[in-house]
Amino acid sequence: MPLANGRHFLSIPGPSVMPDEVLRAMHRPATNIYEGALIEMTHGIVPDLKRVARTESRAMTFIGNGHAVWEAVIVNTLDAGEKALVLESGRFAVGWGEVAKALGVEIEVLNAPDRGGVDPQMVEDRLRTDTKHEIKAVLVVQIDTASGVWNDIAAIRRAIDAAGHPALYMVDCMASIGCVPYEMDAWGVDVTTAGSQKGLMTPPGLGFAWASQKAWDKTKTLTRGRAHWAWELRAEPEVFYQLFHGTAPVQHLYALRQALDMIFAEGLEAVWARHAAIGRGVRAAVSRWGENGPLELNILDPDACSDSVTTIRTGAIDAQALRACTETKLNVTLGTGLGELQGITFRIGHMGHVNAPMILGTLGSIELALAHMGAPYAPGGVEAAIAAMKDDVA
Amino acid sequence: MPLANGRHFLSIPGPSVMPDEVLRAMHRPATNIYEGALIEMTHGIVPDLKRVARTESRAMTFIGNGHAVWEAVIVNTLDAGEKALVLESGRFAVGWGEVAKALGVEIEVLNAPDRGGVDPQMVEDRLRTDTKHEIKAVLVVQIDTASGVWNDIAAIRRAIDAAGHPALYMVDCMASIGCVPYEMDAWGVDVTTAGSQKGLMTPPGLGFAWASQKAWDKTKTLTRGRAHWAWELRAEPEVFYQLFHGTAPVQHLYALRQALDMIFAEGLEAVWARHAAIGRGVRAAVSRWGENGPLELNILDPDACSDSVTTIRTGAIDAQALRACTETKLNVTLGTGLGELQGITFRIGHMGHVNAPMILGTLGSIELALAHMGAPYAPGGVEAAIAAMKDDVA
Amino acid sequence: MPLANGRHFLSIPGPSVMPDEVLRAMHRPATNIYEGALIEMTHGIVPDLKRVARTESRAMTFIGNGHAVWEAVIVNTLDAGEKALVLESGRFAVGWGEVAKALGVEIEVLNAPDRGGVDPQMVEDRLRTDTKHEIKAVLVVQIDTASGVWNDIAAIRRAIDAAGHPALYMVDCMASIGCVPYEMDAWGVDVTTAGSQKGLMTPPGLGFAWASQKAWDKTKTLTRGRAHWAWELRAEPEVFYQLFHGTAPVQHLYALRQALDMIFAEGLEAVWARHAAIGRGVRAAVSRWGENGPLELNILDPDACSDSVTTIRTGAIDAQALRACTETKLNVTLGTGLGELQGITFRIGHMGHVNAPMILGTLGSIELALAHMGAPYAPGGVEAAIAAMKDDVA
Amino acid sequence: MPLANGRHFLSIPGPSVMPDEVLRAMHRPATNIYEGALIEMTHGIVPDLKRVARTESRAMTFIGNGHAVWEAVIVNTLDAGEKALVLESGRFAVGWGEVAKALGVEIEVLNAPDRGGVDPQMVEDRLRTDTKHEIKAVLVVQIDTASGVWNDIAAIRRAIDAAGHPALYMVDCMASIGCVPYEMDAWGVDVTTAGSQKGLMTPPGLGFAWASQKAWDKTKTLTRGRAHWAWELRAEPEVFYQLFHGTAPVQHLYALRQALDMIFAEGLEAVWARHAAIGRGVRAAVSRWGENGPLELNILDPDACSDSVTTIRTGAIDAQALRACTETKLNVTLGTGLGELQGITFRIGHMGHVNAPMILGTLGSIELALAHMGAPYAPGGVEAAIAAMKDDVA
Repeated sequence: MPLANGRHFLSIPGPSVMPDEVLRAMHRPATNIYEGALIEMTHGIVPDLKRVARTESRAMTFIGNGHAVWEAVIVNTLDAGEKALVLESGRFAVGWGEVAKALGVEIEVLNAPDRGGVDPQMVEDRLRTDTKHEIKAVLVVQIDTASGVWNDIAAIRRAIDAAGHPALYMVDCMASIGCVPYEMDAWGVDVTTAGSQKGLMTPPGLGFAWASQKAWDKTKTLTRGRAHWAWELRAEPEVFYQLFHGTAPVQHLYALRQALDMIFAEGLEAVWARHAAIGRGVRAAVSRWGENGPLELNILDPDACSDSVTTIRTGAIDAQALRACTETKLNVTLGTGLGELQGITFRIGHMGHVNAPMILGTLGSIELALAHMGAPYAPGGVEAAIAAMKDDVA
Repeated sequence: MPLANGRHFLSIPGPSVMPDEVLRAMHRPATNIYEGALIEMTHGIVPDLKRVARTESRAMTFIGNGHAVWEAVIVNTLDAGEKALVLESGRFAVGWGEVAKALGVEIEVLNAPDRGGVDPQMVEDRLRTDTKHEIKAVLVVQIDTASGVWNDIAAIRRAIDAAGHPALYMVDCMASIGCVPYEMDAWGVDVTTAGSQKGLMTPPGLGFAWASQKAWDKTKTLTRGRAHWAWELRAEPEVFYQLFHGTAPVQHLYALRQALDMIFAEGLEAVWARHAAIGRGVRAAVSRWGENGPLELNILDPDACSDSVTTIRTGAIDAQALRACTETKLNVTLGTGLGELQGITFRIGHMGHVNAPMILGTLGSIELALAHMGAPYAPGGVEAAIAAMKDDVA
Repeated sequence: MPLANGRHFLSIPGPSVMPDEVLRAMHRPATNIYEGALIEMTHGIVPDLKRVARTESRAMTFIGNGHAVWEAVIVNTLDAGEKALVLESGRFAVGWGEVAKALGVEIEVLNAPDRGGVDPQMVEDRLRTDTKHEIKAVLVVQIDTASGVWNDIAAIRRAIDAAGHPALYMVDCMASIGCVPYEMDAWGVDVTTAGSQKGLMTPPGLGFAWASQKAWDKTKTLTRGRAHWAWELRAEPEVFYQLFHGTAPVQHLYALRQALDMIFAEGLEAVWARHAAIGRGVRAAVSRWGENGPLELNILDPDACSDSVTTIRTGAIDAQALRACTETKLNVTLGTGLGELQGITFRIGHMGHVNAPMILGTLGSIELALAHMGAPYAPGGVEAAIAAMKDDVA
Repeated sequence: MPLANGRHFLSIPGPSVMPDEVLRAMHRPATNIYEGALIEMTHGIVPDLKRVARTESRAMTFIGNGHAVWEAVIVNTLDAGEKALVLESGRFAVGWGEVAKALGVEIEVLNAPDRGGVDPQMVEDRLRTDTKHEIKAVLVVQIDTASGVWNDIAAIRRAIDAAGHPALYMVDCMASIGCVPYEMDAWGVDVTTAGSQKGLMTPPGLGFAWASQKAWDKTKTLTRGRAHWAWELRAEPEVFYQLFHGTAPVQHLYALRQALDMIFAEGLEAVWARHAAIGRGVRAAVSRWGENGPLELNILDPDACSDSVTTIRTGAIDAQALRACTETKLNVTLGTGLGELQGITFRIGHMGHVNAPMILGTLGSIELALAHMGAPYAPGGVEAAIAAMKDDVA
């Protein structure tokens, strides 16, 4: 493997690359979990979680992955037999809906246009017909990790309002928090979910939820049995262990603390700007490659392309062979296509701890693999990315 | 703090001291979660989890703490409205029962004799009266982390059998697995639960469950909604992510792999023997100290004392002042008393990665603190521990 | 710094990027230095050091940097008043000569042609005139870290032989070992020196020397006082500490062990091939950039360009401003020009743990900085590198 | 090994136990060595090195072990043919003298009384006879790591002054710096040497020297060739790399920075008090054990016993068997006897990162091994240590 040995480039859309500082912060012996530094440090995390979601709402941390948090928020907001409207735009809102359904919630899926994002007008239209307000919640992802789409959360809020509908507005920000602008309070979101392992640059194993007062009030009406996921004491604990309903995830908390410190040292807006520039660069490269061949962005509308993950259709080029080439011969791991996109797409993750040399190295390696494979493509993708990003150097 | 600066001695009953090798194994960058080394390594963990519980049953790993696993096994075995018998012997079986109750299970608590372990005869007697077999599960802990009691799991099985009762037998091994003998299959246990952070020497954040065929069959009868906790695909996944119902806890898995390697390199029986000797040493020290003062073991029957955690009543000595002295002046963290034992006891954890110098250093520091405080005690605790352990040196 | 935050790209010619595995191996508590695992592991390093220099000669490890090893080998081979011929081709052979001179050795410098490597014919010519064999040693570097030149060590050996001269042939491989082909025995080298922090991918702090029997015999003739550097017991210790004349560098040895394991797992020839391809890629990029502007390779003869470090003249472009741009705005650290090349060149290190995505990320970032600065250059450097390397993907 | 598995207790007199924080600080990727954070951090180390030796003198850092620094200071202060008086009190001043001798210095050894420290009166007497002032330097160790003796550096200074002798006063503080009081300026020491791996709690690989103006002036008179060790530019560098005469030891410097931070956070006097109390505890334990058997302190005068290392004669007890027992069966590594003390002594290191539980664990393990072996000793060593230290708890 003459060109592979060196640093591994993990260019999947999460778990994403973690800063060395975060790993170092996690490399920490077991500690007192009843008193002392851990307790103080952990309480300091809560306000920063609120800052990252731009909200004054309650923030809760769960030990678990993204699927765990999906369940956690459903359990705290919806009873069995209640109905939720899932706004499909790829794979993950649907997955959330499946969890809700398994927990007894009635699910209706509203599909986005093919290769596009959620259409707010369709949401408004559907909600207008729900005159009895049987729909208790609207579920959507800000960015779909599979399709690479970005949904306009503010616009969907306006659509819900236009329909005068009281449903809880619940947004999954797993692939978007710490990557692109998100304004929970300004956009009127009731429940936000996220995880540690993407934009928040922390190993997988922590999930987060933020809940508006409206969501909080809804919890009080539930008849569903709740124990581990019950979020009341997690948000307002009397004793420390209630924050996590049991033993705290000590090492992860130190890692998260470090990651949050790095995000705020850079500035949240600067983080967003960085992702925007890099996303633009990636799309410029893909567009160039596609000028002379089958490669193309999965999402048709440039304005609906995500700045944290890009899904690329490969047409006549064998997507898995391309991924295998970069993986084994260049030490660059690209994301595989998911679901119906498997085999016909690959994905580039550009979320969290990602900068110009990382993305240029990844794009260069993809182009090198295309060249090596003799695949049909137009050279110059990296140059196009450079041209697209040069005014963002600051 | 003239005598404090140096290594921290964490002598709490979990999260316990982790081997440096485990922390080093966890210090690892993000990796491909779809293919490659992680997948192979993770599949290798499952058989080792079975070895550690001495079972051929299915083993499942959950991201979460002990409370999470409590919920997970309840959700997979008991419907709302079904009844469980909780065998109280401290605090934690009761806590498990509270989780079950919050999930709709009807709970009956059978109390152990004061300062003692579960009495199998009482279990048999109670079950004999349940002629309609309304009790669907019996819940007990092998070791109670609060009281320091050890329950005779095999004897309780015999009691259940003597009563001819078909209830599922569910045992929490959080504070005992990897510490004291446990034979899930030989003792006829249906569900075992445990966590990563005590005898298994891995940071908190992973929980484990093992389920007998009888428990597996019970799952099929449930009407309860199950999503994240559903253990069928976790035990028999079609694709990797189903093992964890979502993103795998990458760093924790590498840590666990290292810890299991260390346990089996030592030999599980050798691990048990080590804990037995150290437990005996701790009790010898406490008994010596108590010859001339108020210190005494919380558990009255020496045969019911746990070999992984020791709870000590302090009588006229201020338990919290003693703990504060060792913590701030000697850098030794002792466990606080829990629940009704708070303020009148302290606890010494001796589980997992613990050897002669660690426990002698801890006991010596307690004795040093007692001497410094002018507390009423008989010197010679460390000598008594040495005498009690010297034939175990091998 | 919208495009900077993410992994740091260290593209200087040493200390070079270390594998995460090497750092992890070094993260290790203090250990017994008299018995046990350390001793066995350390003895295993010696044969691998011989393999890496392709020699059956004795190998010695010194705690120190490259300058320390320069002194160590001078002290062991040359008395004050003896004469050495320094073959200048940049900065480092001259530096070695300065160390020798400070230790009393008489130095004569033979300059290479401007912007070129050592001319073997000039060496032969000079040695032929030394009919009294006053020159006791010939000093040269295989690769000069400042100029970026690669010298033909085998050809210089032939020149020495052609002159029939008995001088010791001493070669500094600091910037070349573990990067490009080196055959100490086949090429008749008497003394080789190297350090840990470049091709050997280990933190700075270890130096290495290899000595032929001829050099060994020369040592016996010396009158110079020698203590710490004396290499006899270091090569053939009676007790362990003599390997290092004092306490062993425990953590570094574990790091080095890991690095050597990685080199031999890849295969030394594969390592060389990787560097050759990447060096070719870098030069292709620089040549492209220079088509429309002042950028050019410092070394004029392409065959004399090093495959581990490339020095680039920037002409009208401010080299320090370019470096500052990549450093502060893109998180890519480029090497500064040294000595007379300071301010008019920059350097790209591509040694050790370096692969396609790393170098493409670095080249892309340089090109991005050039674009951002509005500097005169021809775009397409990365594409040229890709074209130059695509047949090396294997 | 029922009682061994758990944390390793390294109780040798260096390399000593390092704080986890120090290892974590060292776990750091390669960095820019020309500009930026490393440079600033390194310059900050120098004043702290002066603080730790209580001096306004110049401080120099060398990459190397203790033997390296011995050579470094000889090379900078004494010419071949000059004479030095070595004050023997164990093994290490003699070792220093051997290095000096190999570098051409004439050595005269003045032996301390058997099992005792340097007698200042003998020093004064000898120097009075050197009426021609042929002795250019007096070499002594503050603490001898082999014999366990502590020498009274201030008293020896008074002896030199009483003799009116102008020799440089050179003190090796390898085993004492950061452990026991040392006042370079107040005590009129001209050259102090030390290393990183004992009281300074940093991995082996760095050595330090401090030089008075008088020593500095002596350097100017030398005819000896000096290159790598020359300390002028190391103390007063024009460019960064001169601090280390070549590449800086990046990872070690970060480790040292962390260790110094910890020392000054505790307070240097508090560090000394901690060592004093622990040394007293160790000697109390040994004295108790010896009441009924052959164990005894190697140093006869209690006031001359070191507070960082204790050497224990074992008489009829096989010292190596005792060490093997603690090593293999209890995971406690004791120091072996050195030189003529090998086989008849063992050593306990208690230097640097050492506190009450660590030393009590070590002492308890020694006593456990003695009990297990059936060796002749009086039990109660740990109790005696506790009694000796209890008033130091603060």
